[in-house]
Amino acid sequence: MKIENIRHSLSHLMSMAIMEKYPKAGLGVGPAIENGFYQDYDLPEAISEKDFGWIEKRMRELITQKIKFVKSESDFANALKFYKHDPYKTEMINDLKAAGEKKLSFYDSDWFHNLCAGPHVKDTSEINPDAFKLTKLAGAYWRGSEKNPMLTRIYGVAFKTKKELDNYFKFQEEAEKRDHRILGQKLDLFHIDENIGPGLILWHPKGAILKRIIENYALDEYLRNGYQLVYTPHLAKLNLWKISGHTEFYKENMFPAFHLRELGEEEKDDYQIKPMNCPFHIAIYKTKIRSYKDLPLRYTELGTVYRYEKSGTLHGLIRVRGFTQDDAHIFCSPEQLPQELFSILKLTFNILKTFGFKGFKIYLSTRPEKFVGTKKIWQKAENSLRYALEKLNLKYEVDRGGGVFYGPKIDIKIEDALHREWQCTTIQVDFNLPERFDVNYINKKGKKQRPIMIHRALLGSLERFIGILLEYYGGNLPFWLSPEQIWLIPVGSRHEKYAKEVGVRCQVSGIRCQVKNANETVSKKIRDGEIQKIPYLLVVGDKEMKTKSVRVRSKNKDLGIMKLDEFLEKVKIEVERKK
Amino acid sequence: MKIENIRHSLSHLMSMAIMEKYPKAGLGVGPAIENGFYQDYDLPEAISEKDFGWIEKRMRELITQKIKFVKSESDFANALKFYKHDPYKTEMINDLKAAGEKKLSFYDSDWFHNLCAGPHVKDTSEINPDAFKLTKLAGAYWRGSEKNPMLTRIYGVAFKTKKELDNYFKFQEEAEKRDHRILGQKLDLFHIDENIGPGLILWHPKGAILKRIIENYALDEYLRNGYQLVYTPHLAKLNLWKISGHTEFYKENMFPAFHLRELGEEEKDDYQIKPMNCPFHIAIYKTKIRSYKDLPLRYTELGTVYRYEKSGTLHGLIRVRGFTQDDAHIFCSPEQLPQELFSILKLTFNILKTFGFKGFKIYLSTRPEKFVGTKKIWQKAENSLRYALEKLNLKYEVDRGGGVFYGPKIDIKIEDALHREWQCTTIQVDFNLPERFDVNYINKKGKKQRPIMIHRALLGSLERFIGILLEYYGGNLPFWLSPEQIWLIPVGSRHEKYAKEVGVRCQVSGIRCQVKNANETVSKKIRDGEIQKIPYLLVVGDKEMKTKSVRVRSKNKDLGIMKLDEFLEKVKIEVERKK
Repeated sequence: MKIENIRHSLSHLMSMAIMEKYPKAGLGVGPAIENGFYQDYDLPEAISEKDFGWIEKRMRELITQKIKFVKSESDFANALKFYKHDPYKTEMINDLKAAGEKKLSFYDSDWFHNLCAGPHVKDTSEINPDAFKLTKLAGAYWRGSEKNPMLTRIYGVAFKTKKELDNYFKFQEEAEKRDHRILGQKLDLFHIDENIGPGLILWHPKGAILKRIIENYALDEYLRNGYQLVYTPHLAKLNLWKISGHTEFYKENMFPAFHLRELGEEEKDDYQIKPMNCPFHIAIYKTKIRSYKDLPLRYTELGTVYRYEKSGTLHGLIRVRGFTQDDAHIFCSPEQLPQELFSILKLTFNILKTFGFKGFKIYLSTRPEKFVGTKKIWQKAENSLRYALEKLNLKYEVDRGGGVFYGPKIDIKIEDALHREWQCTTIQVDFNLPERFDVNYINKKGKKQRPIMIHRALLGSLERFIGILLEYYGGNLPFWLSPEQIWLIPVGSRHEKYAKEVGVRCQVSGIRCQVKNANETVSKKIRDGEIQKIPYLLVVGDKEMKTKSVRVRSKNKDLGIMKLDEFLEKVKIEVERKK
Repeated sequence: MKIENIRHSLSHLMSMAIMEKYPKAGLGVGPAIENGFYQDYDLPEAISEKDFGWIEKRMRELITQKIKFVKSESDFANALKFYKHDPYKTEMINDLKAAGEKKLSFYDSDWFHNLCAGPHVKDTSEINPDAFKLTKLAGAYWRGSEKNPMLTRIYGVAFKTKKELDNYFKFQEEAEKRDHRILGQKLDLFHIDENIGPGLILWHPKGAILKRIIENYALDEYLRNGYQLVYTPHLAKLNLWKISGHTEFYKENMFPAFHLRELGEEEKDDYQIKPMNCPFHIAIYKTKIRSYKDLPLRYTELGTVYRYEKSGTLHGLIRVRGFTQDDAHIFCSPEQLPQELFSILKLTFNILKTFGFKGFKIYLSTRPEKFVGTKKIWQKAENSLRYALEKLNLKYEVDRGGGVFYGPKIDIKIEDALHREWQCTTIQVDFNLPERFDVNYINKKGKKQRPIMIHRALLGSLERFIGILLEYYGGNLPFWLSPEQIWLIPVGSRHEKYAKEVGVRCQVSGIRCQVKNANETVSKKIRDGEIQKIPYLLVVGDKEMKTKSVRVRSKNKDLGIMKLDEFLEKVKIEVERKK
């Protein structure tokens, strides 16, 4: 018995419960979905989640009746007659007819005769009455268009066993606690402003500091590893994106161009806000004649790009319309490709592990049906990617034919504590752009040759990466990343001076700290500090003042009194080791 | 005798020389300008700068003839008859008539009868024949429109004495050596790409490192001084700029909006690439209810903004269409205003002096005729600005009525070695935006009150600032700012290993260095290093290797041999002290 059949059958049982009360309810779509099912209804009166009780109760009663699901066929005339009161089913039937269907499939469960392609359980004994639950109610436009009437959608979740159902809710609860959108608000890290635009992040001071720490760390690592920093503009003439092929292959992800002709000036160019950094890095490469001795050339930029995504798909920091990439483009000779890919992968895992990530899923995507370049060069690039992965003893899955048309790639996903996967690093070989922009170097024989270009974003989108970090750590960021690392809590006003002294000592050591004032109680400040997920709360009173010490609280635990010098030494080491 | 009269009279003498050879030459405009004069001609044949010889020679001969300049008047009919062969003068006369002029002014010098408003010298004995020079030849459209014919414009420079003329050319030569556009190319710092767009800077690796050093230094200073970092998007719904008033008061500096309706999606908003950061910082302020205890709140951002400037006004890094501001917006109570302005000014001069600037011009601009807010609040703000200036013993000029409509301001210009002034810092009080966005805080009495907002860009545009730095230092940047600080030059291949060791020692000390290979001669590498304006060139041969030393060359001078440890200590101190 397939779980999808159980889920879909539950949506029929829900419809039976509903139609017993509202016999003329209109029926929209009602599929099995991930973790459960839903069904859309046109109801004669508004219902609420309070109604879930009687619906669930009736569904359970129906389950115990061992109702059979029986498939039958019908012709169009009979079906239309049967649904003469239901405009939604009528429309579906007419559409099936127009699509050239010859017969219609129905499922009968007891008295409920329903147009449906199935499949279903044999009978309701396959369904565990304690392993499903109705979860939420939402408005949904018929066929997803706001021009159509709004139907009532009821969602449910369902599993084979009660234990799975319980686990699902536990997971939901845990995921909600870790939801970066909720944490982002609670910790005052960022917001999205409807007056400014969906998918555009405004980083508040604490979020901005976090972003800066990550950016500086990554950039310093890249510079140390032979990358060169560049900065490029956020817009360019539309024509650049025609040369690059983006207007052809990437149009649906681009914001519309803007037109200088609207200014009524002599210039008439169209400009485009950049969805990618590549053409700019190529422009810098091309300002000089490059020799094989100059290669590999590795340009890196914290490039903020803007891509149009449908507003319905936007999700906090994870899916946005504007984001900063830790982008790089490497120009190398074909001979240098294996070594370059190896270096990139090695650097990637060094950095990802520094952020504390432990589980990874690696995918190698190979030549698709439509591709540019020769099969030979694809083979060489794929072999180079495999070489790099295998030299580092990395396990990977091959996504055969899953490469982009311009070259093969490696994608790395991060696994979190809840076994969710988050897209992070991408490393792509590109045979296309060097061709389109006529990029060259002079090889050892003194002849012009095309370099190979590698696109590489290690953290990917900084926005998404921070979203992942927040979810991964449930907001309890490692010490070196915490925007506020320490709160100093004086017990009374006579301890404020000492607290400030300690604060200065911390700041001199490069630690981000805040001295709280003594107006509120210590316990209130500790509670606030724990809600704000401050790594260390240092309480200072008479005893601490006298002995040049601090009382250390960390992650809801009292670690006792420590000498100030000792404590500073400890946290300095934590920062150095990026703990 | 006014220099303008001399300059304008020289343009008449030039016309006499030209018309002796080309009697039917058409005459366009011919004013006195800064440093000299020009005149536009419609000539029967092309001339070149090679012709300047005979023109200048003839002008000098005319000067010695003590020719008088005599003013006369003419009616329109006679004037039109006189210029019947010259369509340009004819058009000018008709325009003067249309503008309601009653009489026309002519100047006669010998046979040359010229429509001209003057004034002129009495006679050519006032003109020093050795104190002028023709400088260049350019095409210029009649009346500046490309729809009109192209005339030949001849430029000259003129002074009262030969010495002034010589000084002018010396200055020009010096200015050209310091031209940041030339230096930018020579030192490979940046370029502007016609395929991407005029006024948009692409920072190459060395320029990008310079930009990053400056940005990090400034940002760290701001954070140390109680500013809070934020990051905001580069675009926003057009409506935001309607609320802020930019679409009304700043339209001519804004790029055109782009229209989501062009995507054919359900969203129909217009979006605008940001010309300023202010509304975003206000949006962050407004995410919480703010109390007087939270003020002053100081948000800072390295915000990259895009402004439309006519392509003809663009100039290297100095006048661009996209630039990064070290922007800040401070929200404070009226009582806090004097202290805040004082702190800003103090920080400003600390930072500007760290960059090595010594001469400043300070301007205080006060209430214009059209203004928002009350006279009382203007008075208070102007007094606060004066207070801050005077408390710091700064000399300033008052630009009466020169403030922006929304508040008074202080502008600071940097003076360079050639006594040129460069616009840098701006500090503006703003009574307008808090009103437009309904920005509040809860005051001590528990009531809503408007904060005062201060806009402050200390370095101003990072692009312009780097342009100024390059011109100021003629490319010889201070050590701490140099993108490449040290080149290591091995004498022969057997010294390469030691050179690399020294290189690692430098890198560990945080010094940016490069080890040159031994293929080229030492003198060639020294020459290259000096052209590239590398602060220290370290030559290492047998002797240096044996004694763990380096031979130090700096600014074209051999500083002799130094122990490596000693040298590293010296440069570390230079970086710390920002020398």
